[in-house]
Order: sequence, then C-alpha cells, then structure tokens
Amino acid sequence: MSRIVSFEASDVRFPTSSTLDGSDAMNLDPDYSAAYLRLATDSADGLEGHGFVFTIGRGTDVEVAAIRALAPYVLDRDLEPMLDDMGGLWRELVYDSQLRWLGPEKGVMHMAIGAVVNALWDLKAKRAGLPLWQLLSSMTPEQLVDLVDFRYLSDALTREDALAILAAAVPGRAAREADLVASGYAAYTTTPGWLGYSDEKLERLCREAVADGFLQIKLKVGSSRDDDVRRLGIARGAVGPGIRIAVDANQRWDRDEAIDWMRDLAPFDIAWLEEPTNPDDILSHAAISRGVAPIPVATGEHGGGRVMFKQFLQADALQVLQIDATRVAGVNENLAILLLAAKFGVPVCPHAGGVGLCEIVQHLSMFDLVAVSGKKDGRMIEFVDHLHEHFVTPVDVHDGRYWPPTAPGAGSEMHDASIREFTFADRANA
Amino acid sequence: MSRIVSFEASDVRFPTSSTLDGSDAMNLDPDYSAAYLRLATDSADGLEGHGFVFTIGRGTDVEVAAIRALAPYVLDRDLEPMLDDMGGLWRELVYDSQLRWLGPEKGVMHMAIGAVVNALWDLKAKRAGLPLWQLLSSMTPEQLVDLVDFRYLSDALTREDALAILAAAVPGRAAREADLVASGYAAYTTTPGWLGYSDEKLERLCREAVADGFLQIKLKVGSSRDDDVRRLGIARGAVGPGIRIAVDANQRWDRDEAIDWMRDLAPFDIAWLEEPTNPDDILSHAAISRGVAPIPVATGEHGGGRVMFKQFLQADALQVLQIDATRVAGVNENLAILLLAAKFGVPVCPHAGGVGLCEIVQHLSMFDLVAVSGKKDGRMIEFVDHLHEHFVTPVDVHDGRYWPPTAPGAGSEMHDASIREFTFADRANA
Repeated sequence: MSRIVSFEASDVRFPTSSTLDGSDAMNLDPDYSAAYLRLATDSADGLEGHGFVFTIGRGTDVEVAAIRALAPYVLDRDLEPMLDDMGGLWRELVYDSQLRWLGPEKGVMHMAIGAVVNALWDLKAKRAGLPLWQLLSSMTPEQLVDLVDFRYLSDALTREDALAILAAAVPGRAAREADLVASGYAAYTTTPGWLGYSDEKLERLCREAVADGFLQIKLKVGSSRDDDVRRLGIARGAVGPGIRIAVDANQRWDRDEAIDWMRDLAPFDIAWLEEPTNPDDILSHAAISRGVAPIPVATGEHGGGRVMFKQFLQADALQVLQIDATRVAGVNENLAILLLAAKFGVPVCPHAGGVGLCEIVQHLSMFDLVAVSGKKDGRMIEFVDHLHEHFVTPVDVHDGRYWPPTAPGAGSEMHDASIREFTFADRANA
Repeated sequence: MSRIVSFEASDVRFPTSSTLDGSDAMNLDPDYSAAYLRLATDSADGLEGHGFVFTIGRGTDVEVAAIRALAPYVLDRDLEPMLDDMGGLWRELVYDSQLRWLGPEKGVMHMAIGAVVNALWDLKAKRAGLPLWQLLSSMTPEQLVDLVDFRYLSDALTREDALAILAAAVPGRAAREADLVASGYAAYTTTPGWLGYSDEKLERLCREAVADGFLQIKLKVGSSRDDDVRRLGIARGAVGPGIRIAVDANQRWDRDEAIDWMRDLAPFDIAWLEEPTNPDDILSHAAISRGVAPIPVATGEHGGGRVMFKQFLQADALQVLQIDATRVAGVNENLAILLLAAKFGVPVCPHAGGVGLCEIVQHLSMFDLVAVSGKKDGRMIEFVDHLHEHFVTPVDVHDGRYWPPTAPGAGSEMHDASIREFTFADRANA
C-alpha cells in the first residue's frame, strides 16, 4: 500500500500579455497561467501525479489557495483504494458538505477539485503504463459508469442509458483505436485569429495554417463589426473556399445583438459561432441557435459543469459541445459530459490552447472516439501553438492532426525548470 | 478627498456544527462562518466599511484569499469618486479581464466581489448617516439604474424598463416608508425546522414560533420520506391550519423524484417548495413547478447571479424569488435581481439566517417595498434566531416582523470581540 506524501501547489504565470497572444473581445491581455499541483507518493516507483487549472493571470493565487484547501482530502491517504474508486473520490470532493457552499459545482472551488482529480488520473495512468486515453479506453462500461455521478442528470441520462452507449461502442473499440493510431485526430487552429494581431499577421498566419494542413481556422470577433467583416474577408481570401472558418465572440454580445451581428458575418461561410453571449445563458443560446441557423452555435469552455451542459443539450442551445480539461471537476465530469453529448448526438470539439489544455484534452477526445461516441463526424480539437515546450510530453500535431500520445500519463506534467522559472512571486502586484 | 487605507480580511468561524443548528439534507454539519472584510479610510470621520461572504466552514480560507485578491482594486484609491460611481466600480470588478476567467460571475471570486461591494455600501450609508434601505430609497430612478449592469439582461430587462419600474414607485415612496416604519416587514422562521432536531424539539419550537407571532415556518425535508411526513404532521398539528408551512429540500432531489416526493407532502398545505434540485437546473425547476402546482417553487440562495435569475423568471422556473445578501456581487447585483423580479411580477422572499444575512438582507427587502416593487403581497424575510449577538446592529424582529433599522450602514458590522474570538487559526485542520 502506498500513500500520497507530498501535495505541492504552485502559481505559474507566463507573461503572454506582452505579445497579445490569446487576446480576444473579452480577454484583452491574458497572462496564460496555471494553478499547478504535483502529488508525490512513497511508492518505490517514484511516479508523480500532475494536474492544474488553467487561468489567465490575476487570481491564480486564489485558485492555488483552493487547491491547497483540498490537501487534507488526499494527503497521507492510502493511494490504491483511492485510485481504484475514482468515482467515490469525485463524490467525496464535490459533495463535501461545507466546501459545496462555495459553488455548488462551479467556479474556483470546482476547478480546484478538477486539478486534484486530474492529478490522480495522471498518476493512475502512469502506474498503468498507459496514456490516459488508452487507460480509459481499456476500462469496461461498468467501470466507466462507476466514475460518473448521475445525480441531477437522471432526467436526461441514466446509468442504464450510459451503460448502453458504452456497451454499443465496445465491439468497434479495437478498429477505431487502430484507425486513430494510423490517421490521428483532426485539429483546427486558432493561432491566426487573435484580435490583437495586425491584418498582415492575420493573413500570413491564415496561409501558414492551410500550408500546415489544418482544415479549419478560428477568428476572434465581437469588438468591431467593421473590423470583423474586414478581417473575415482577409481570412477567407487567404484560405480559399475549401477551408472552414469558425468565429468566436467570447461572450461579447447580448441575445439580439448576436443574431443581428451575425447577419454581416454569415456571407463568409461560417463553420460555427462560438460563445456569442454569457456562458450561463442557456435560453439566449437557444434563441441565438434558432436565429443564426444553419450556422451551429458552439460553447462550453466556461461551462460550469454537467448540469449546465445537460440543459444546453435539452434546450438545443448548442450544436457543437466544447469540453474543457480544467474547467469542470476533472476526467470524471468530462466523461459525464461526453456521455450526455453522445446521448443527444451532438459532436464534441474541445476547447484547448491556454497552458497545457491541448496536452490533456486530446486524451478525452481520443477516448470518446474509441469508447464513447465512436464518432469522428465534424469533430476536431482546438490547437494553439504556444507554451507546449513547457510540458514533458508536448502534443504531437502535424499535418493538421493530433497524433495519439504514447507516453504514460495524462499529458499534464510541466517541466520542473518551467515551474521554477515562471513561479509568480510578487503577489502584491497580482 | 479621502482614501481607503486599510483592507483587512478575516476567517471567522462559529462552531455551530456541535448543536446541529443549520443542519439540512445537504448541509449535514455546517460551521456557520464568514470571510469578513473591514475597510478603513484616512477620513477624520473614522467611519469604516464592513462586508462579508457567508460560508459554512471549510473553504472560508479560500474565500478570504479571493477577497484579498481584490485589495489592489480599492486600497489607496480616492474614496469619493468610487462611492459616487458604485456602478462603475461593480463593472470594473466583475469585468476584470483576468479575474473573470475564474467564474465568470459565479462562485468564490464573484462572492468575494460581493463582499467588497457591500463593504463600500456600508461605508457609503454610514457617511450618509442613513441605514442602507433608506439611502437606496432616497436615490433617484436614474441614480439607481446607473448601479445596474444591463449586459446580458437586455432580452428581459432594459435600462428603460428599469427606469419605468422605478419611476412608477416614486409617488408612493413616502407613504410606503411610513407604513413600513409603523408596521414592520413580515418575517418567517426556519428556527424550528432543522433536520438534526428531535420531534419534541420540533414541536416545541413550532408552538413557540406561533406564540412569537410568525405566520409562516419552514421545515427542512428530503432525507427520508417517512420522516418528512411524520415531521410535517407534528408541525401542522402544532401550528394549526392558519399558519403557513414551507418545505426546503436543499437540492436533495432529481427532477422526477421531487415531483413524486411532493405528492406525499402536499396534503399538509405547503406554502412553497424550496430548492428541490440543483440550483443551476432551470429546466428541471420549470418542470417541477409544473409538476407540483399549485405549490410555488422557491429558489435563489445559491443563484449564481443575475443571468441565472433572469432565466428562472423567463422559464417560470420559480414563483418565489429568494435573493441572498452575499451570494452575488453585492447590492448592485441584487438591485438588478429585484428589478427583474418586479418586471416579471414575482414576489421576493430573501434567504437569511447564516451569519449576519438577516442583518443585511432586510435592507434590500425594505428598499424593494419602498422604491422598487412597492409590494407586500406574500413577501417575507427569512429569520433564524442565531448569531445576531455578534453584530453591532442586530436585527429587531418581534411580533413576527422585521422592524426597520435606524442605524446608519448596511447592518454588516460584526463586533471586534467576536471577530477576534472566532478567527480561525488552525488551517491545517480546516
């Protein structure tokens, strides 16, 4: 029997605001950051579990405090029973009768639970000698549903529904895994489209994206209608008619404004409209979905949790579901969301970029392909080409596709040197 | 010109779990707590601003960290321009482009903003020499709408709608204020109904509630159907047919379970059903509202913010709206919610109890009566008789009614001695 003997949380911030990488209509000058957790055990194998919450600068110290508040729940505990019952651990953390008041199931505390859960999954995958996507894809339908808490989901998805979805995917697992290894998983790139970039840089990056094999790019919109039209013209001209262009308003609009604004952008053949308004506004997303059809509405990177995703699906308020690796309470909750999406027949196209989000979330999409939805239809993972060098097992993206990781773990381990170099010391100026 | 020269956040916890005060189906053993903020200025008047977030034990340290992260936004700033433009300050905090990632507009960071905003309102009211309800009731409709951010609300409530609501209430302000001072504001009591109490204690407290003049009591339900039926029988027997009995499930059920369970409780003449399921589940609340009609559904103490309340109203998912003084981003956001409720014609019955919630939230209901909805129809403020002794201006509740506070401020100031005695030192055991 082993135990968790070290629980180390760090405030890691990269000064990305200086280059306007990541700038959009709501996030003007992000410093891409991580509230980072490293778990060590007393096992002779020396394996560690790493997890984090992606943040964008100020407030990372608050997220670190929230992660530290969870140390008593895992530190000095017997490891194997915990890793053998990750569903039980998830419920213990999410339903803690005092911590729950701070959400429930949303915001700083919920994301902190995600970091702890994901760090334990990283450790579990390393101990199994498998990349996370393969570990999950090797579990039985019964083992997988045990990871999910169906409370508050039963009006849309029961344990029996989930078992049926997973069981139906079992026969094709091997063939899809072989196909995944041979062909990779589709990616799209947001690298060209940040608002802070000049027209020249936008055009150059659009051409490079096509040359790099991407079949979809994404542009940030929502600050100026004239600018959006001009920039979409440049982008469409640069990529030609065969490449998909999605737009992302980052919550900038109200309901009617979104529908109206999109009239000017629709002629550019828009692949999807992302985050048109407040991410909690299910009813407005449903109205916008009707108003901009046939353009699909995509959202999820700020989705508070499974109860919100359930309702977005029930209300047909999204047609592309964007999971995020560190917004919800970890792998378990994302499995619940993948199952909901499968039940409703909606494609999942994860949010990524940030710090290490590509590295983690690819595991969930690949697992979804192999063992949950079993589908590739229009699905792709966001890719942004920055900060990968800080990770021990950076993504392998080429020819416009993610190639399945082979290293054991969840992809979440940052280099020691990066953590040390970018640990944020000056809280007074936070 | 004055400046904020001190920003002091404290972790204050009362060991209420030892008596099971506050125990319900989800909150088994709360230690009623506050992440407490005290602002001091360099003004010769020596007035301070006090605000806090109500919490229930573990995690209060996280909330304190979130409040501390906001110090740079108010410390050393010129005070008068800030107090003169509280709407601007609200937007500055809520739309901070980096902190916003941690919500947006929900959870730990959003509640922390509420503590800061409320502390400034406390200070503003003290400087005006008025209790908060009277200060707000003395502002013009234009001044009041300037406090509200209408982004994301425009599909349900515009600035013009709000102005019309507030202007319509102006002529009757003086008469309603006189009536309020003469007659007080209706209260109901939750003191009898905690799950951890014995049947004997329940019966005794029910009789005492009636003797104390309360016209409504509330019982916690949802742990055991048989227990609920037995306890409701005891309560109904003790209070007689003329007293209203509400039930509160504290999020215990799924959608269909709530509707089914209520079939057994409906014969006891239920005044409202509170928090039947997850507080973010608008669509299930709407279905439950239809399923348990004519019993009204009440919710809001965990309402993430104005965007959620807007949707609950649009979907007819609540028929009694329960604001909370410290869950959303302070007075400004609660004004937005009061205006939404007025627009939809839904009565507001605040959540209170906890630590100091009665002391603050009464100001909002009294302001609503005088200057917003102008209505008393079925409206009442929750009352729980504990922890009031820790406040400098404790509520005056007698004859089943809240009596309007006359002391300047927002009611949020705790005694120094209480803060010192109950400051939580042992984080390792949190």
